[in-house]
Amino acid sequence: MTLTILGCYAATPRTMTNPTAQLLEMKGRMFLIDCGEGTQVQLRKHKLKFSRINHIFISHLHGDHFYGLIGLISTFALLGRKTDLHVYGPKGIKEITLLQLKLSNSWTSYNLYFHELESEESVVVFEDDKVRVTTIPLRHRVYTNGYLFEEKAGERKLNIEAVENYEIDLCYYRKIKWGGDITLDDGRTIPNEELTFDPLPAKSYAFCSDTVYTEAIVPIIKNVDVLYHESTFLESEVQYCEKTMHCTAMQAATIAKKANAGQLILGHFSTRYDSIERFKTEARTIFENSEIADDGKVFEF
Amino acid sequence: MTLTILGCYAATPRTMTNPTAQLLEMKGRMFLIDCGEGTQVQLRKHKLKFSRINHIFISHLHGDHFYGLIGLISTFALLGRKTDLHVYGPKGIKEITLLQLKLSNSWTSYNLYFHELESEESVVVFEDDKVRVTTIPLRHRVYTNGYLFEEKAGERKLNIEAVENYEIDLCYYRKIKWGGDITLDDGRTIPNEELTFDPLPAKSYAFCSDTVYTEAIVPIIKNVDVLYHESTFLESEVQYCEKTMHCTAMQAATIAKKANAGQLILGHFSTRYDSIERFKTEARTIFENSEIADDGKVFEF
Repeated sequence: MTLTILGCYAATPRTMTNPTAQLLEMKGRMFLIDCGEGTQVQLRKHKLKFSRINHIFISHLHGDHFYGLIGLISTFALLGRKTDLHVYGPKGIKEITLLQLKLSNSWTSYNLYFHELESEESVVVFEDDKVRVTTIPLRHRVYTNGYLFEEKAGERKLNIEAVENYEIDLCYYRKIKWGGDITLDDGRTIPNEELTFDPLPAKSYAFCSDTVYTEAIVPIIKNVDVLYHESTFLESEVQYCEKTMHCTAMQAATIAKKANAGQLILGHFSTRYDSIERFKTEARTIFENSEIADDGKVFEF
Repeated sequence: MTLTILGCYAATPRTMTNPTAQLLEMKGRMFLIDCGEGTQVQLRKHKLKFSRINHIFISHLHGDHFYGLIGLISTFALLGRKTDLHVYGPKGIKEITLLQLKLSNSWTSYNLYFHELESEESVVVFEDDKVRVTTIPLRHRVYTNGYLFEEKAGERKLNIEAVENYEIDLCYYRKIKWGGDITLDDGRTIPNEELTFDPLPAKSYAFCSDTVYTEAIVPIIKNVDVLYHESTFLESEVQYCEKTMHCTAMQAATIAKKANAGQLILGHFSTRYDSIERFKTEARTIFENSEIADDGKVFEF
């Protein structure tokens, strides 16, 4: 599981800072999360093979989270993309994208699917054999969802030595990987635990931005391995949180602690701060395993 | 008259090249021409006081000419702008902008006026006491206009020595600057030429992008001081011009020659070319005073 931060600053793009966008690689899938203006240039800058992105998840329709989407969709068309592209986001995202394509008399060379979200409950929006993606309803000035990305538990690992020892035929290997016991020709039943090792633990990643402090998300992200939680402000500016519906680093850390997260990554920093190191210091007073995002930073889990 | 090239490359933004946007300073007015994705970052990078932009002219609704507009409009609002902003562009530009603002539940802190264009004829779209802006109907895959920016001739310059010599009263100075003759108390009439010098010549700038080769624009831009004309391709790729409705450097130079332009600036280069120097070489075989644009380049006239 690799997370590349393409942008983690609030409000307007600047020379050295970019609005929200992240690329998550999980079980070989490449998920783009949010797409602020300039995201396609960030993808190029970090030499990411962005033609492999088949799923884009947009949290909400504020500009710093989606103004780069239409540009990326257009660029995919210019590059002659043929693979289906799925876009998940609030209702309205389809209308705005299609209107822009219509006015530019440009249509995509690939199938473009919109999955518009309206539910106030957590719902599964994507699922295949290896990964599940669920919404995390957030509380912001407009309808907003975070997203929980969960690996599914893999097959059990074959204990080759044991399997060969019992002279088990190759055709039973799949059954064994799926957890089945084996009955030998002499009638003995060998329990699965003797023939396999545990699979690698399934990992999970939760993206929560933008939102005011809300404990309603805790049950959804309980025990998540890695939590990205917005922290627009420091506690010294907590008075801005209610009106703007954002969080402080301390509030983000409190959520991480209550959710028993493995690690917290802070982001969506207000551009009022000269240094973002203070976000880490503040969060660690509540939740020790806190890190800060930064544009171009890569996290491997 | 100062022209800053913010971006002059076709199609998609890349790490080192930007889509079309230019800032023209004329008689103290600051005009933004086209606004590809990332324009607001380019404005910041070149330390331009972009809050002074009150008029934005969009040629057409292809992404590489206007995907940065909504971001700039939003940033103006975030910065608390109060001054009116006028946007000129093809019909549809208002609908798309308002839809994006509506979906993000964000409204501007300033008056935002749209001047939507539909005419196939050249029309005056802006005029004040010092500058006039006229459309240049172009031929492209969608409805497109170039823009002609013309300074108005200034007042005549007072020949202070002559005026004092004739002991002309201060209250006649304005009449003299406006070209009037003066009758002295003794009955003599002093012709204006004796009392003034010619004003600085009024300058003009024509922006023509994107377009296929069309001589229909020649009468509109006749004798223009500076012509920016798209040259997406070199003559070796002229076969792409008809389908994509773009020009070669040689075609752009031919237009400059026929229009008797003072200077030609080439731009909107296809990203297929490693070096843009060849555009200049090619154009100069037809029109000697040809230059190439490049991102960040500043032309003073």
